[in-house]
Order: sequence, then structure tokens, then C-alpha cells
Amino acid sequence: ALFESVCAFFTPKRLAGRKVVITAGPTFEAIDPVRGITNSSSGKMGYAIATACVRAGAEVVLVSGPVMLPAPLGVRRVSVSSALQMRDAVFAALPGADVFIGVAAVADYRPVQAAEHKIKKSGASISIDLTPNPDILAEVAGGPNAPFCVGFAAESRDLDGYAEGKRRSKRLPLLVGNLVADGLGGDDNTVILYDDAGKHPLPRAAKPVIAERIVEHLASLLPAGAGQLQA
Amino acid sequence: ALFESVCAFFTPKRLAGRKVVITAGPTFEAIDPVRGITNSSSGKMGYAIATACVRAGAEVVLVSGPVMLPAPLGVRRVSVSSALQMRDAVFAALPGADVFIGVAAVADYRPVQAAEHKIKKSGASISIDLTPNPDILAEVAGGPNAPFCVGFAAESRDLDGYAEGKRRSKRLPLLVGNLVADGLGGDDNTVILYDDAGKHPLPRAAKPVIAERIVEHLASLLPAGAGQLQA
Repeated sequence: ALFESVCAFFTPKRLAGRKVVITAGPTFEAIDPVRGITNSSSGKMGYAIATACVRAGAEVVLVSGPVMLPAPLGVRRVSVSSALQMRDAVFAALPGADVFIGVAAVADYRPVQAAEHKIKKSGASISIDLTPNPDILAEVAGGPNAPFCVGFAAESRDLDGYAEGKRRSKRLPLLVGNLVADGLGGDDNTVILYDDAGKHPLPRAAKPVIAERIVEHLASLLPAGAGQLQA
Repeated sequence: ALFESVCAFFTPKRLAGRKVVITAGPTFEAIDPVRGITNSSSGKMGYAIATACVRAGAEVVLVSGPVMLPAPLGVRRVSVSSALQMRDAVFAALPGADVFIGVAAVADYRPVQAAEHKIKKSGASISIDLTPNPDILAEVAGGPNAPFCVGFAAESRDLDGYAEGKRRSKRLPLLVGNLVADGLGGDDNTVILYDDAGKHPLPRAAKPVIAERIVEHLASLLPAGAGQLQA
């Protein structure tokens, strides 16, 4: 706590007076009472960004999927499991937000139906029908009076192509891209920032260091003045 | 470490000279490089049993799925991800084992094929074909010179029926049953032990306490003499 206070004291208050809503972690899409579809996101990147935003003076709401991390000091955490729950929590937190940062690895699909009781094993093959989940970031970015939206893209190949495609189709002013092998679940990451000015690769570093750089960059792109931005 | 040593000193050495192989945690069955099917097992029960076995004087190999727990002192941990990897690691550890305790919540099914690259989202519904995983416990219990095998059953209903059915079909001398709502992922558990003498409910307690009781019970059922048991 003392360390946090000292760090916060020496960090420029680039986000003073701003409200930031962040999603982090995986989502868990239930198949039955015990099984589900998830991904290997650890939540570390989103939690590091939440910490960096608090240090920069922001009011932070962290909507988190199931992870094993403690809530960062000074952050209001809302814990959720599925993508539908995450969407509800995000829209509940959004009024008055200046910035939305979608770091969570939200499951793209969920089982059409979750079984009420544990599915018993049989020798036969089975199949699970999946339906697309809502795209929380696209909904936030496309809404009226949208906050400044930052997206994340973890890809296994062709990062530039997918990242710029995602940034343009969702009309995001800033997108953070990384290769899955470089970051997912680990302590370090190698990321590239994509914005209207182009591509800005950051040197490989620990996630808290990367998070500080991302927050600095995002703060530099924010229009002056507190309060909600115009869409 | 001092606390562990003191506890170990005062615990009767019921498993001295015995080798115990334990599985713990969930398995993660890859759909693509980031997504997969898993379950909400935390690994706490299996890790607590591994600790209790070490205290009771056993040599312990812990084959663990992906969890956020440190390896217990004195345990040899082998980390795996999928059920197929878990089976390989169990059979590699099995020679010379007196006891096998299958605590892991092994995924019953895995995707027929894991995609090499991240599946891109589209607006359409999709389905995933699943094929049954091997039943590691049944394979171990049914093998030649099988060790003393202990199974676990987490059910969402009709615990007695499913537990006794599982114990008989796999020919297990001991099975630990619990209701999903009582234990999965949490710190406490309420379990019932099923053996040839019948049903033995244990009072609700923290997982380390439950683990000590299970190990005591299992040690009382073990035939005298070190070395591998006859099937």
C-alpha cells in the first residue's frame, strides 16, 4: 500500500478527473453446472492497466471474468462469469465514463443451451451448438455519446492485418495488438499500438510496464477537458 | 516450511514406504490456440490430499492440470494440460505405486480436432464435435497389478446412486462423493466416503481437514506391507 502510494505520487496525473471502465480476464460460458468454454487469459494485462489508470488519477471500474488475482488498490471491481453478464456489468458502469478499455478475452461463442444437470459421460461422440456472443466493445464504441474506446487483439498470425481490420470495423481510436504466443497467460508481453497516426511497436516488457506505456499513449490521445466525450 | 515439518512430525506415518500417484485440477481441452473446454475445478482438494499423503509419510507424485496453486512441499508435481497428457503422465508415474487417487476433474470429452489458428468470429452459429476422452481412473483400476484406487465423484444430484454406480463399475475399493454445489472451486467441502462396508458421511470442513480424514480412511483400508498390491 505504501509502495502504491509512492508510485502514485510520482506518476503524472494524466487521467485526473476521468472515469475509466475496463474489462479483464476470460469469460466462462457454461455447458452444464461444472463444464464450460473458456480461454487461457490470466487477467494480468487488464489488471495491470487498471492499476496504471488509478496511478494516473482515474476513477476505475474493473469488470472482471473469473481470474485468481486480487482487486488492485483503489479499483472498484465487478466480478462476472459469462459474456452476457460482462455486457450487463459494463453497461451498468458506463454512464459518465470517459474511457472504455476492453482487455477481456470475451468468448466469441456460448453454448445455445446450458444443461441444468451435469451431462453424464457416454461412449458416443457428441456435439455442442454454439451461438455468437454480443461484441461488447463494438456495442460500446457504436453507442451514442461513446467514450474513448481502446480495443485489444490477440492473434496467432497476421497481427497487422487483423488488428487494423478490427480497429477500423469497430471505429476504435486505439487498438493494442499482440501475438498469442507472446503474451496470453504469461507475465511479459510484446505489443504494438495501432492508432490513426499508424503503428507503434513497444519493446517487450513486463505487463505492468506495458500497461503504463499504453495508459500514457491513450492519455495523449484524449481530448482535453474532463467529462464525457462526444462520439 | 517449519509449520509443515512440525505437522508432519505429529502425523502418524500411516503411509510410510508407500508411493502415491494423485491427479488434481481440471483439464483444458483445446478448441484452438486460445480457447478450450474446461471446468471449474480449482485443484484445492487434490493438492490438499497430496499434502496429507506427504505428512503421512508417502512418496507423492502429483499430476496436475492447469491451476494457480504452488506445488506442496515434498511433492513431485508433473504439470499437464489435456486429458491425454494427464493419462501419459499418470502411466509414466505409476510403476511402483501402491495407491492411485484420481481427484482431477478430467474432461469427459475433447474437440475432435483443435484448430491450428484462432477461429475467427462470424455472425453464424457453429458447432464443435466432441469425442470421449479416455477414463484414466478406469484404465488404472482395470490394469494388471493395479494399485489401490480411490475415485472422486462430483455430482449435481442423486449422489448416492451415481457414486455407488461409479465405484462398482470401476471396481474401486474407495470413492469420495460430493455435491457440486458443496465443494467445486471453494475452500470447504462436504463429502461422503463409499467403500465395501457402506457409506461414511464426513462433517463439512475445510479441504485440508477433509483430506486428512480421507487419507486416514484410505490408509486403514490398505493391506499391510509395503510394495505394490495385488490386483
